[in-house]
Amino acid sequence: MSFEILKKSSVSRARLGVIHTAHGDIHTPAFMPIGTYGAVRSLSPEEVRGLGAEVILSNTYHLWLAGDEIIKKAGGLHKFMNWDGPIMTDSGGYQLFSLGEKIINSKIQMPNDKPIQSKITEDGVAFRDSIVGDEHLLTPEKSVEIQHNLGSDITVVLDEFTGDINNYEKVKATVERTTRWAQRARKAFSGGTAQLQYAVIQGGMFPDLRKQSAMELSQLDFDGYCIGGVAVGGESSQEQYKAVEMSVPYLPEDKPRHLLGVGTPDQIVEAVKRGIDTFDCVIPTREARHGKVYVSNSSFDISHSSFREDFRPLDASCDCLACTHYTRAYLHHLFKAKEILGIRLLTMHNLRFYMRLMQVIHLSI
Amino acid sequence: MSFEILKKSSVSRARLGVIHTAHGDIHTPAFMPIGTYGAVRSLSPEEVRGLGAEVILSNTYHLWLAGDEIIKKAGGLHKFMNWDGPIMTDSGGYQLFSLGEKIINSKIQMPNDKPIQSKITEDGVAFRDSIVGDEHLLTPEKSVEIQHNLGSDITVVLDEFTGDINNYEKVKATVERTTRWAQRARKAFSGGTAQLQYAVIQGGMFPDLRKQSAMELSQLDFDGYCIGGVAVGGESSQEQYKAVEMSVPYLPEDKPRHLLGVGTPDQIVEAVKRGIDTFDCVIPTREARHGKVYVSNSSFDISHSSFREDFRPLDASCDCLACTHYTRAYLHHLFKAKEILGIRLLTMHNLRFYMRLMQVIHLSI
Repeated sequence: MSFEILKKSSVSRARLGVIHTAHGDIHTPAFMPIGTYGAVRSLSPEEVRGLGAEVILSNTYHLWLAGDEIIKKAGGLHKFMNWDGPIMTDSGGYQLFSLGEKIINSKIQMPNDKPIQSKITEDGVAFRDSIVGDEHLLTPEKSVEIQHNLGSDITVVLDEFTGDINNYEKVKATVERTTRWAQRARKAFSGGTAQLQYAVIQGGMFPDLRKQSAMELSQLDFDGYCIGGVAVGGESSQEQYKAVEMSVPYLPEDKPRHLLGVGTPDQIVEAVKRGIDTFDCVIPTREARHGKVYVSNSSFDISHSSFREDFRPLDASCDCLACTHYTRAYLHHLFKAKEILGIRLLTMHNLRFYMRLMQVIHLSI
Repeated sequence: MSFEILKKSSVSRARLGVIHTAHGDIHTPAFMPIGTYGAVRSLSPEEVRGLGAEVILSNTYHLWLAGDEIIKKAGGLHKFMNWDGPIMTDSGGYQLFSLGEKIINSKIQMPNDKPIQSKITEDGVAFRDSIVGDEHLLTPEKSVEIQHNLGSDITVVLDEFTGDINNYEKVKATVERTTRWAQRARKAFSGGTAQLQYAVIQGGMFPDLRKQSAMELSQLDFDGYCIGGVAVGGESSQEQYKAVEMSVPYLPEDKPRHLLGVGTPDQIVEAVKRGIDTFDCVIPTREARHGKVYVSNSSFDISHSSFREDFRPLDASCDCLACTHYTRAYLHHLFKAKEILGIRLLTMHNLRFYMRLMQVIHLSI
């Protein structure tokens, strides 16, 4: 068994567990820092490990276009990026879906900002690379193959989803296609490697569709289940919690559950109570690059002029490098001067804040 | 005595020495990484120290406008930036001088790219901050005061120079004003602190003016002497070597000599032979940000497509983090993906290359 439950809360669906992977154990509930291109922005793997992270999530779409075959030749993503702990990869589909051009553009962040033209068929998602103009086709099988080349420990099957989470017909169609694609991906998955394979539950805000998706995918006996379509663009925390509540009861108790793209500290706490084991999110790293600092029950913007002469640490209770060696005044100065070290130190702090949050969650279960 | 000569070469003017400062010793010949805003771009002080650097150089002009009074309140630049080793600061004048608008703009790098309007008088350099429109006046005394606020170990007096190094009348006028300003700065320097004060030799490409500048300034008994006007914009290596050769014989043997803004590995080797003890230069750090990698007797651009599948280290003989933990293919990938970690790793490598160069120079003396 790749997943063990060590303890269940007596007051909620929360549980303590451990996921065994080929590159080590993940103690759950766990938060995964994002290393989109095989690097957690601005940090070395040693630093990420030092912050307490056991597992990172990299993006299949980005690494595919950057060259998954090269990463395979390098000996896989672990060796390529010098991270010997567990790695989860997503399916690569997220960036390509029909969420309207605006969202697609904002998520893809292609250097030239041209919209990506994508077309979804039963086969998969066809799109044209707006940089070199190449045509690509991402199918359930192709996604499995890319993730096999990357050699990630936890892989995710290609799913279909819609941003139109309250449109029953649209959501039902994506749920059903997601199941068909999951069947194809499960078949394409060799099982001969040490990889785990997770499916993705869809179903928008409809209890019967979430139930249908969870039950159909559970029958395929995946190693774990993601809950998707809850951090796509604009969903409220309440909608996220409801989507989790509608899905979890129909998932096998003995398999890990991952909530895709979530979230804020509050959202993580609430999702753990509802039975979620693992999380990935850009919030701590992306917001650090914009100067946002997380502290207990609060946050602030380090570039605000009120910090010019504030010689206190970011958070006196934090044990990260930024808090133990530098003042708010210095970090403010680095942000004003656009020094990379400022981004690094805030990234370290925010990730450490998330890791300490997970420790508190562990102790509370 | 703040400077000791430990050994002199039998075949050149090169010497091994040690500069004693309030924050530790500098073993010369030494190279100083640049930390313009009180941070060596992308690196933490611990990393800079780990690369073998004993001393860094920060820019008075930038820290003045960022707020030298705040840094003073923080307990000085060492404490502000968490670097407990020696710090040298320049005079702040370099960015303001009459080198023609083009050079001024490229050096100042004000965020809005507006030219700085500056006016040089006997009093000092008046200029208008193009961002908030404030008027500032940098005098020899003001430069001493700012550097006192910063608390650097080695300070430099305000000098005047011209980019027109072959115009005798212009160069002679700057030499004479430089001496008058040095007298004022020497007087303003309290001496009560643990700071050292260096003067700057000017004189362009004229032997008699270099001699005049060196002799006049030597009489003021500074703690060390910089040779200036050799890395301002477009000077050849041969011009640099000549300027050093014209200056060194007229400087006191028992004081350290710093070559401002130099240089490439070759230029450093040649200047050491001509009697230079210390160097500062943006080359290893700035060029790392543009993907340039220094290796023995050569350099290359990591973003070139030939490195896509090159799984060798940058330099098999190097002991830096980049060379011991990562491949050229991964660093190429990081640069293509614009990942900050790529800049960090190349900055570390180039600085380590410079530090190892200095070790080789030490062994050869």
